[in-house]
Amino acid sequence: MTHKIAVLPGDGIGPEITEQAVRVLTALDLDLDLQTQPVGGAAYDVHGHPLPPVVLDLAKSSDAILFGAVGDWKYDTLARELRPEQAILGLRKALGLFANLRPAILYPQLANASSLKPEVVAGLNILIIRELTGDIYFGQPRGVREVAEGPFKGERQGFDTMHYAESEVRRIAHVAFQAAQKRSKKLCSVDKSNVLETSQFWREIVIEVAKEYPDVALSHMYIDNAAMQLVRAPKEFDVIVTGNLFGDILSDEAAMLTGSIGMLPSASLNSASQGLYEPSHGSAPDIAGKNLANPLATILSAAMLLRYSLGKAEQADRIESAVQKVLEQGLRTADIHEQGLTRVSTSEMGDAVLKAL
Amino acid sequence: MTHKIAVLPGDGIGPEITEQAVRVLTALDLDLDLQTQPVGGAAYDVHGHPLPPVVLDLAKSSDAILFGAVGDWKYDTLARELRPEQAILGLRKALGLFANLRPAILYPQLANASSLKPEVVAGLNILIIRELTGDIYFGQPRGVREVAEGPFKGERQGFDTMHYAESEVRRIAHVAFQAAQKRSKKLCSVDKSNVLETSQFWREIVIEVAKEYPDVALSHMYIDNAAMQLVRAPKEFDVIVTGNLFGDILSDEAAMLTGSIGMLPSASLNSASQGLYEPSHGSAPDIAGKNLANPLATILSAAMLLRYSLGKAEQADRIESAVQKVLEQGLRTADIHEQGLTRVSTSEMGDAVLKAL
Ligand SMILES: CC(C)[C@H](C(=O)O)[C@@H](O)C(=O)O
Ligand SMILES: CC(C)[C@H](C(=O)O)[C@@H](O)C(=O)O
Repeated sequence: MTHKIAVLPGDGIGPEITEQAVRVLTALDLDLDLQTQPVGGAAYDVHGHPLPPVVLDLAKSSDAILFGAVGDWKYDTLARELRPEQAILGLRKALGLFANLRPAILYPQLANASSLKPEVVAGLNILIIRELTGDIYFGQPRGVREVAEGPFKGERQGFDTMHYAESEVRRIAHVAFQAAQKRSKKLCSVDKSNVLETSQFWREIVIEVAKEYPDVALSHMYIDNAAMQLVRAPKEFDVIVTGNLFGDILSDEAAMLTGSIGMLPSASLNSASQGLYEPSHGSAPDIAGKNLANPLATILSAAMLLRYSLGKAEQADRIESAVQKVLEQGLRTADIHEQGLTRVSTSEMGDAVLKAL
Repeated sequence: MTHKIAVLPGDGIGPEITEQAVRVLTALDLDLDLQTQPVGGAAYDVHGHPLPPVVLDLAKSSDAILFGAVGDWKYDTLARELRPEQAILGLRKALGLFANLRPAILYPQLANASSLKPEVVAGLNILIIRELTGDIYFGQPRGVREVAEGPFKGERQGFDTMHYAESEVRRIAHVAFQAAQKRSKKLCSVDKSNVLETSQFWREIVIEVAKEYPDVALSHMYIDNAAMQLVRAPKEFDVIVTGNLFGDILSDEAAMLTGSIGMLPSASLNSASQGLYEPSHGSAPDIAGKNLANPLATILSAAMLLRYSLGKAEQADRIESAVQKVLEQGLRTADIHEQGLTRVSTSEMGDAVLKAL
């Protein structure tokens, strides 16, 4: 059976890191149909839109999407709906990619990269599960209006709507409990239920779903406290589940605890196991085209693609082991380079992973 | 002129830490009329409400409020509107305390307390200015409703409204620019304007206000990136201004970077310089009544009270120097204790500050 994969390199360093991941996928001797299209700013340049129909159609008809990164200063003056990041929001919504899995793993070989003390982060391995198609990201109504009453009557006001429906919370909770079952059986749900109605509702539903997973220990934490505890003692967390907005913040914070965000992949899945796979880092336009970027997060995203959307766990393991091996060999791109180790370029890192496969 | 100060010790460790701050205030030979009332859970126990009229009236008629902390597990089963934290939300709203100033300072004597590497945090001194009476904290409508249309039609849905009116953004921006003028003349405004209409509006207004402060360098950062950069290189920030929700998260994260949240005061001001002053930490019910808690954040909050609401900068300086002195003497409460230094109780720390005055 042929698996169709949409390859969307995007902007900045997107193309060069995606290229290495494609080399790795191609080397695995799987029956893959890889189709490449521009996305984000690159698609705007060609089609006048960051997510034109031809790209969206390809994505919809594929088993999985390998995504590079989008964004570049040069698109900053465009209207919001034409900016590169609209492509990623549009893909999430159109494909119903509600479950975002973001591991924050500190590779033992990279322990020094962290800004935290080694004893605080050594062995860190957290999985953040972020709801990705609901919340204030897509809630209507939103916009700018005139205030109707109260002390600011008559003024202009920017506004957005946060909301979660019952089944939206339920399905992400199931994903989270099942992930926790496969790991330490500890799940922490993060909300702001002391202030927000949406959060109080979220917490109620999570507690209901928990009854189906008696083997998982569920805890709850407010977002402000979670942001603190991640700094104080990140290893006390294992699986975290949270909404779209809080997940955006926490998953980036957790990623940065490792100091090596160039190593972290992510998966965004829908209920049919269709998924979008992308590195957790951005498009880094400042180093684009210089063969400097770290391709490992994208290569590890390709491994997640094989595991979650194609059911090829063995090949995913092979990629992950190959990445471990190149780290052990002391090969490092600039972002994670330390004295005494071998500094390599983007493509050299790709070469090394291929060899280690 | 007599200054009237409402003393609201609250729950948990609130009473014991507030007691030490009151001793310090009293020792300064100022004309103060200190009036104490219960608040939060303690007020619920007596009056059946966390912020009963007698307490609210006292707060309104005072020049400033010295606040301990609220919250205890034993109130967790109460309806949300009766829970201790409603007192603090109610006071902010009723008194219009829109400007929350939260310094995150790493005292050189406490450099080891941080979970971050010394070189990353040594000398850290950030001021977070959080808008405190708007945003999704108070936005209407909010609640639980039935979804009217779309894929979740007919289901229950929790929802909230985020919003900022023009003058709400304007006034907090002025506070922030003026604070930046007195410091490094660098201001970073944090939002999520790539996704939220409220944030886009916020950013527009901040840019407008910036024209009145040509000497301040204004930058903008998305909240997810700010949560990362605080971990990676916190010293690149000086003054940060942000909305109520993002400020809740960022100010706690920044506080925890110091590892000594027991040292950090806060001020919440309205346009008449009336203010509520409280430690940045919580009520810590687990150690309440044990004479273990660190009173320094509350004592430093009293210093902020003198500086911002009473215009007594000299006396504020005296308190701050006294705190420096006891740290230099090697006195430490349990939360910041290290081997080789002298461990003291809450009241002994109060004694030491009094002596150092
Ligand atoms: C680019 C932006 C819209 C996006 C988000 O906020 O979700 C990004 O920060 C992410 O986390 O993937
Ligand atoms: C107790 C809670 C409502 C409050 C808030 O979210 O504002 C607290 O976290 C704070 O920061 O003062």
